[in-house]
Amino acid sequence: MTNPAEVLSNLPVAYDDIVAAAARLTGTAHLTPVLTSRTVDEQTRHQVFFKCENFQRTGSFKFRGAFNAMSQLSPEQRQGGVLTYSSGNHAQAIALSGKLLEIPTTIIMPKDAPTVKQAATRGYGAEVILYDRAEATREGLARQLAAERNATVIPPFDYAPVVAGQGTTAKELIEAVGSLDVLLVCCGGGGLLSGCAIAVRELAPHCRVIGVEPEKGDDVTRSFYTKTLQSVHNPDTIADGARTAAPGNLTFPLILEYVDEMLTVSDQALLRAMFFLWERLKIVVEPTGALATAALLEGLLPQTEARIGVVVSGGNVDLSQIGQYSASHFG
Amino acid sequence: MTNPAEVLSNLPVAYDDIVAAAARLTGTAHLTPVLTSRTVDEQTRHQVFFKCENFQRTGSFKFRGAFNAMSQLSPEQRQGGVLTYSSGNHAQAIALSGKLLEIPTTIIMPKDAPTVKQAATRGYGAEVILYDRAEATREGLARQLAAERNATVIPPFDYAPVVAGQGTTAKELIEAVGSLDVLLVCCGGGGLLSGCAIAVRELAPHCRVIGVEPEKGDDVTRSFYTKTLQSVHNPDTIADGARTAAPGNLTFPLILEYVDEMLTVSDQALLRAMFFLWERLKIVVEPTGALATAALLEGLLPQTEARIGVVVSGGNVDLSQIGQYSASHFG
Repeated sequence: MTNPAEVLSNLPVAYDDIVAAAARLTGTAHLTPVLTSRTVDEQTRHQVFFKCENFQRTGSFKFRGAFNAMSQLSPEQRQGGVLTYSSGNHAQAIALSGKLLEIPTTIIMPKDAPTVKQAATRGYGAEVILYDRAEATREGLARQLAAERNATVIPPFDYAPVVAGQGTTAKELIEAVGSLDVLLVCCGGGGLLSGCAIAVRELAPHCRVIGVEPEKGDDVTRSFYTKTLQSVHNPDTIADGARTAAPGNLTFPLILEYVDEMLTVSDQALLRAMFFLWERLKIVVEPTGALATAALLEGLLPQTEARIGVVVSGGNVDLSQIGQYSASHFG
Repeated sequence: MTNPAEVLSNLPVAYDDIVAAAARLTGTAHLTPVLTSRTVDEQTRHQVFFKCENFQRTGSFKFRGAFNAMSQLSPEQRQGGVLTYSSGNHAQAIALSGKLLEIPTTIIMPKDAPTVKQAATRGYGAEVILYDRAEATREGLARQLAAERNATVIPPFDYAPVVAGQGTTAKELIEAVGSLDVLLVCCGGGGLLSGCAIAVRELAPHCRVIGVEPEKGDDVTRSFYTKTLQSVHNPDTIADGARTAAPGNLTFPLILEYVDEMLTVSDQALLRAMFFLWERLKIVVEPTGALATAALLEGLLPQTEARIGVVVSGGNVDLSQIGQYSASHFG
């Protein structure tokens, strides 16, 4: 029989790493607010705590992981700069962290990335390099450019300091509101989910950690239940932050070890949850950011009254698109 | 020469009334958050404090005035119930206050009021009576019904306890952040503006209080500068909370006495400000709720660095309409 302590010691991220990340983030990342709602509590018959990472710097939890990773680079690595690939929230998080830490940053984005996202990333001082999806893969291009420039690649989720940084989200939530019975966390590549699960296992051992994916991008859910890495090809979901093809080599074992359950929600449920948060909590949340809320509102949890934490992960909606969301939801 | 103290003593609302209102609201109204933004401070070169009444119960500051007024009714008045006319935020504020205080409420709304607003008001337990704008005036209908039912009419702004309740907004803001150089407040009928101005005069005597109206509904601005009550007929502005025809008999003298300046902003500036708040602060604000922010962002204030309070007055957007707002703003 394997010794459980030994298994855990082989995993690449531990609770101590999250504590160290929290110390690095103090005074730089926002201690984001926890919102509650009478309407939600009455409707769900639970006591619900929304951890609002849409109010985090750059508009999502991604700043935690990016800043934690970049603040640990050596002077030589800093000089070479940081490179990543992302058309979304990780790009802005790396760009702002670079600005704050005075580290040059380069972001590889597909040519068809929304111009507002390109502009936001450049606005933080990053160099943006566009590529043609048909001609190159982002990982290949990143490796090539990093070698040429002697730059460090910080990927969006499959990287230990990124996971540790994201885990500070759950740590802060539990420190603010006390123990929980359930924590609902959205899942793309699993960086936020695995980091939060590690923190929960330490701070609220009996709390069930549940990951939530879009139905059409259910790679982690299928991987979790089959215990075998499964992937999806370019999933067609409005949750653009959860369009990752598969869990990571690093996040997958962490999810298997620490996460209790995976759930999926439809895009329609996601839009309902998103507009519910806009209408009732008066907060702007992006579709991916409403995944955990959708699982709660769709009644996917047991009915026994419980203290439930919900991570609202980001608020970077392209507002020029809201007409489409509105038409799709309100008809 | 008139004794200034004597003039003030003839006015219908004084700072003491606001202090009394604050005591009545404690534990029932939300102590709404004050948000700050690095982006806004850098862009405007001021230090800006947003008092976020979109997070108030029922989604706007109107709850303050309604609850303050209704909690002062005698047992006999409570039995007769409360009646008002509004298709907007005052309706929901009266309805919820009635629910909390166990006072029956009746709201007179035009037949063409959005069904979501009718539903929200009924959701708080109010009776909604619809009327045809072509056949009756809301004030006439209210008087007739109130007489039949022995009910008390609590109008949306031209009523001393309502003004005193709204004034607690500025009191809370200054108590939270300290003195201010400028306070920007939106203006419809002037209940919020006059209440806030009275509080400011007491708590931050040198602070300039500036009211902000939509260009097309500039009745208070013209009345203020001509010192004569002016009106507009059914102003065509997206700021639906500021479509009032004229300042009130009660609010107008208060505005003349306590307010320093009036400004107007275009509907386009209002949409820019609204989407700016959604995008950067991640908060849902209705068009009327962005009036004060619009005056700030359009650069209508002197450039000298200052501590500026901005009241974000409400967040009740009909989200099924956001496609239109988006199309109008983003093109």
